[in-house]
Amino acid sequence: MIDDAPQGEAGLLARMLPHLSASDRLEVGPGDDAAVVRLPSPRVVVTTDSLVAGHDFLPATTTPRWIGHKAAVQNLADVAAMGARPLALVAALSAPAETPASVFEELTIGLARRAEADGAHVVGGDLGRAEQLTVTVTALGTLEEGQAPVLRSGARPGDVLAIGAPRLGRSAAGLALVLSGRVEVRDGAVHGAGDHADLVTWHDAPDPVLSRGWTVGRTASAMMDLSDGLVRDGTRLARASGVLLDLDSDALAPDVEQLAPVARLLATDPWPWVLHGGEEHAMLATFATREVPAGFRRIGRVLPAEGEKDHRVLLAGAGIPGAGFDHFEASV
Amino acid sequence: MIDDAPQGEAGLLARMLPHLSASDRLEVGPGDDAAVVRLPSPRVVVTTDSLVAGHDFLPATTTPRWIGHKAAVQNLADVAAMGARPLALVAALSAPAETPASVFEELTIGLARRAEADGAHVVGGDLGRAEQLTVTVTALGTLEEGQAPVLRSGARPGDVLAIGAPRLGRSAAGLALVLSGRVEVRDGAVHGAGDHADLVTWHDAPDPVLSRGWTVGRTASAMMDLSDGLVRDGTRLARASGVLLDLDSDALAPDVEQLAPVARLLATDPWPWVLHGGEEHAMLATFATREVPAGFRRIGRVLPAEGEKDHRVLLAGAGIPGAGFDHFEASV
Repeated sequence: MIDDAPQGEAGLLARMLPHLSASDRLEVGPGDDAAVVRLPSPRVVVTTDSLVAGHDFLPATTTPRWIGHKAAVQNLADVAAMGARPLALVAALSAPAETPASVFEELTIGLARRAEADGAHVVGGDLGRAEQLTVTVTALGTLEEGQAPVLRSGARPGDVLAIGAPRLGRSAAGLALVLSGRVEVRDGAVHGAGDHADLVTWHDAPDPVLSRGWTVGRTASAMMDLSDGLVRDGTRLARASGVLLDLDSDALAPDVEQLAPVARLLATDPWPWVLHGGEEHAMLATFATREVPAGFRRIGRVLPAEGEKDHRVLLAGAGIPGAGFDHFEASV
Repeated sequence: MIDDAPQGEAGLLARMLPHLSASDRLEVGPGDDAAVVRLPSPRVVVTTDSLVAGHDFLPATTTPRWIGHKAAVQNLADVAAMGARPLALVAALSAPAETPASVFEELTIGLARRAEADGAHVVGGDLGRAEQLTVTVTALGTLEEGQAPVLRSGARPGDVLAIGAPRLGRSAAGLALVLSGRVEVRDGAVHGAGDHADLVTWHDAPDPVLSRGWTVGRTASAMMDLSDGLVRDGTRLARASGVLLDLDSDALAPDVEQLAPVARLLATDPWPWVLHGGEEHAMLATFATREVPAGFRRIGRVLPAEGEKDHRVLLAGAGIPGAGFDHFEASV
């Protein structure tokens, strides 16, 4: 039986480090003051993002492994959204002193496996104390010489708006199940969600195909990852590009339809999940071509804007109520 | 008068971003999914470290600007300790919803100014919520082709042990003043510390000369930054190198002597501050030469170890009680 008592730093590291795999790119790995990684190019792409217990996840409705997975995904997705391939991650973990060593180990497994699935490696980190479990990941990727980053500002009227995911709104529907109080996660399994356990799993550990960012996504005129909802993130893209985005309600109807059963269960409307649901981390992109590349599907079009107030997102030409998620707004 | 009410993300960013200065190396700055930085070489040096309110600082005895400064220093020091020059920082800030916008702004100023003092720039970040103010910084630096990183493992018997700071123990003495309950920080000034306010300031915002790491420190046989105390960090270096370190009590006596007045005030012994005091972030290095380079001073010597139990730190040939700081040990 593995000892699961809280441990000192050295004991925790002994549980965590064996789960990090070697990489040819890693000149100096964990254990010194900093890691040294050889990138394919001197153009480094860097992003950072935190998950905080009670705010970004509810410990009773997820697992440490899924938390690690999600922390990896949200950072890998930001690198992918630049059209770049992620290569290295560092993770700062803060937790209460009484946290079992297994939590650190499982977090590490979740982080490392999800990173490795996209060819990236966890190369270093930091351990510290906090009242709330907090995971802050920084992801590094690279762009080759001559490869332009795909920015949010490149969308032009006439472009097609597309998403690199087969369905939207799953994470928000999963969150709604969690917030309904009927769901519990025990022994790594979702209980109380009936046929909809996959939605809770997707919320806890979303698993978008991120390689779409650094493969076909490189041909996008603009791209970003969907973290705060189609309307809020779309508005950011619209503002950066100086355009109007018009969502196609027919294109999104299948997403809504697939969520109809769980919406009935919760006596709510599935449309806001699709329009405002965050934490999908799929690639939201615009393409200047009529055909969108494989892995993306068309969900709308880019229109000219008449002034700054028109840098927004419409649904079939009409305004959309609601605003997505803002970390520092009192209510959404 | 500047509005200091809590704000949404956009309002906070509007207060923070103007304090980030431009850099020729920055191809894509804050505002897109990730930053793109052109390094001088594809060999990236990366490290991450968190500061958490109540654990790593006490809000009533510091200022947001000093917290930002300290968060920068502890990460820049880790890059410097590899013999590398820091170039870019990203920062993830988590805070309670009611946090005034000025806290974010002052944190940003502290971070950005300290980074810029060493030629590094804040290139991106993340905002989120938490019960405790938390600042996680990731620093990136670079090593030129052919330049070996300075590791902890390169110390050899006969080397000189040196520190890149004129005095040690100031941060620990400042912390002791803070923990004595007599110190308060109001309007950016230390009150209640008598003649010793500089020690509290040094604890809250240590300001070591980090360039010693990437200038003369590059000739060191081993190097690390002093974050958890001379004995604990020295033991790490001793273990990594397979050597014994013997501190010179005469060389450290002036450090102790300079802290004698505040030690008398607090009715304690200043030696533990010098031997075990952390958060100095000066460069602890070993040199194969008899003379240590300018900016460093000799504080001991590297001796052969007789087995693993001898990978430790002595003071004038004798064992040292106490063990420095471990984030996950119940008491020190």
